[in-house]
Amino acid sequence: MPRRAAAPRPPPGEFELIERFTRALPLAGAGVRLGPGDDTALLAPPPGEDLAATVDAVVEGVHFDARFTPEDVGWKALAVNLSDLASMGARPLWALVALAFPRGTPPERLEGVARGLGACARAHRIAVVGGNVSRASELSVTVTAVGAVRRGRALLRSGARPGDLLVASGTFGDAALGLAPGASAALVRRQRRPAPRLALGRALAGVARAAIDVSDGLVQDLGHLCDESGVAAVLEAAAVPTSAAYRRAARSLPDPLGPALGGGEDYELVAALPPARLARALRAAARARVPLAVIGRVERGSGVRILGADGAERPAPSGHDHLRAPRPL
Amino acid sequence: MPRRAAAPRPPPGEFELIERFTRALPLAGAGVRLGPGDDTALLAPPPGEDLAATVDAVVEGVHFDARFTPEDVGWKALAVNLSDLASMGARPLWALVALAFPRGTPPERLEGVARGLGACARAHRIAVVGGNVSRASELSVTVTAVGAVRRGRALLRSGARPGDLLVASGTFGDAALGLAPGASAALVRRQRRPAPRLALGRALAGVARAAIDVSDGLVQDLGHLCDESGVAAVLEAAAVPTSAAYRRAARSLPDPLGPALGGGEDYELVAALPPARLARALRAAARARVPLAVIGRVERGSGVRILGADGAERPAPSGHDHLRAPRPL
Repeated sequence: MPRRAAAPRPPPGEFELIERFTRALPLAGAGVRLGPGDDTALLAPPPGEDLAATVDAVVEGVHFDARFTPEDVGWKALAVNLSDLASMGARPLWALVALAFPRGTPPERLEGVARGLGACARAHRIAVVGGNVSRASELSVTVTAVGAVRRGRALLRSGARPGDLLVASGTFGDAALGLAPGASAALVRRQRRPAPRLALGRALAGVARAAIDVSDGLVQDLGHLCDESGVAAVLEAAAVPTSAAYRRAARSLPDPLGPALGGGEDYELVAALPPARLARALRAAARARVPLAVIGRVERGSGVRILGADGAERPAPSGHDHLRAPRPL
Repeated sequence: MPRRAAAPRPPPGEFELIERFTRALPLAGAGVRLGPGDDTALLAPPPGEDLAATVDAVVEGVHFDARFTPEDVGWKALAVNLSDLASMGARPLWALVALAFPRGTPPERLEGVARGLGACARAHRIAVVGGNVSRASELSVTVTAVGAVRRGRALLRSGARPGDLLVASGTFGDAALGLAPGASAALVRRQRRPAPRLALGRALAGVARAAIDVSDGLVQDLGHLCDESGVAAVLEAAAVPTSAAYRRAARSLPDPLGPALGGGEDYELVAALPPARLARALRAAARARVPLAVIGRVERGSGVRILGADGAERPAPSGHDHLRAPRPL
């Protein structure tokens, strides 16, 4: 973080607070010639590679609430960006953090955010190279993440072709159910501490033809991939992987597969690849220690059709009771 | 901007609004392999150059109020970041924009922000390559800007040495007085539409030893430069350049030089250089069509001393009635 905040100069207590926030963050990393403290960070991009850059914000009352610890907030703010890098097959390099918070925010809360963000940064080897602090009505953390990917190897949304298989990492619906009252610890963790699939994304670069990370729900994000590729998808609902914790919690729902198909925020990857490359993809996933399941196929046309266990088409999932549903953007 | 917003999917009207926001922004630019619409932008960094990266936010009620048009807000959100690039001697390349706004924000307001941001981006040739949209309690625009600078030529805060001259671009205090009731159009414009000194910054790279952009007030930011360089500064108050509009408006103030010394937000550059390089710096400034004045010198020690017209030390400027003063960070 730069040592100066947005004008005007905050009272000394706030300056100290910003210093403490900064100290809690890991700053070092590859290619960082000059970290926080000057007007800009100076960064040495890896020769011959493209950069992948993305920005996402998490806002109190919209993306998180009082059930999240400050550490959860910091972790998630970075993790959702790293998931975008993962979906492109990029490896993370640098992050910038814009923190906004109301007057009177306890220093411990900001330190908690810094700790969570730092833990995620260390886990995924991304340097925090700069930032900004300003006042606002609610706590928010806006992270810009930059990664690198070998030229021409990035996994775009637009590469899927009819005949491709659709594969998905991990399990779906856990994060959505993690918001329900009384949710199990495993489900809550998926909601609050998503694990970006960076190793898998890199392993799939050069193997898959297209990929996306699932933040807004499997069916919806698969729809985006189809739109960008100019293709249709057939999704086999019964093949969508779910966890044991999910299956226990979803048993009593009117549509037990609803949260898996529509819930979002699991930050798993969905990729399209020619059938002949499936074995390579499965080996890549095994190396990345992530389960990979075939969940459907790509066809000519547009839109996403969902087939139930009986082979009949089933309706799109209804939205679940989402933290942000009461006040959508 | 990516076509998807933060989860969940906004109603169609909001999607259209985001599309309209996106269309208003210039997206093309050097080194952009893939712009908005996928999970990340793909960018080709210029070979052999370092990147300069910075992030700044402008928040409603903190950095702007109802007197700013939406176009002003968009312009300023980008300009304050470009000023950081200017102070490093970098040329701008790419920007990412995280927009947050309350439910019910009129589409015209967001389009105005996009227009202002777009106008600033076009004026300074920076491509808008990605972004994020989320809901919040007030309008805010957080911009991440990335520029390029030849390796080893970046102007740091830490390079000033005893014996250096201090030079400053343009005029000081206009932006601060632009917040006063009944301020002249020229002063208001300095507050709402700052002009980042990019051409000057690049011209000074390799000539000056240290530089900073003045966002928080001349004395305060000069103090940061001194701290980072481990030196002291002597500032000749009478040599600090002011505009005719400033002098007219400041005549009646108890301390007519106060806003010039302490006001901030003019986004002028202050640089330190050996006296032998002054002629080169003046020629560089003339090429960049920016006035450059000698305002003081660097000495051994620490802190900033301010000398009045009589050569006697004068006190630090008192804070002016700043938009954000009532609620400092």
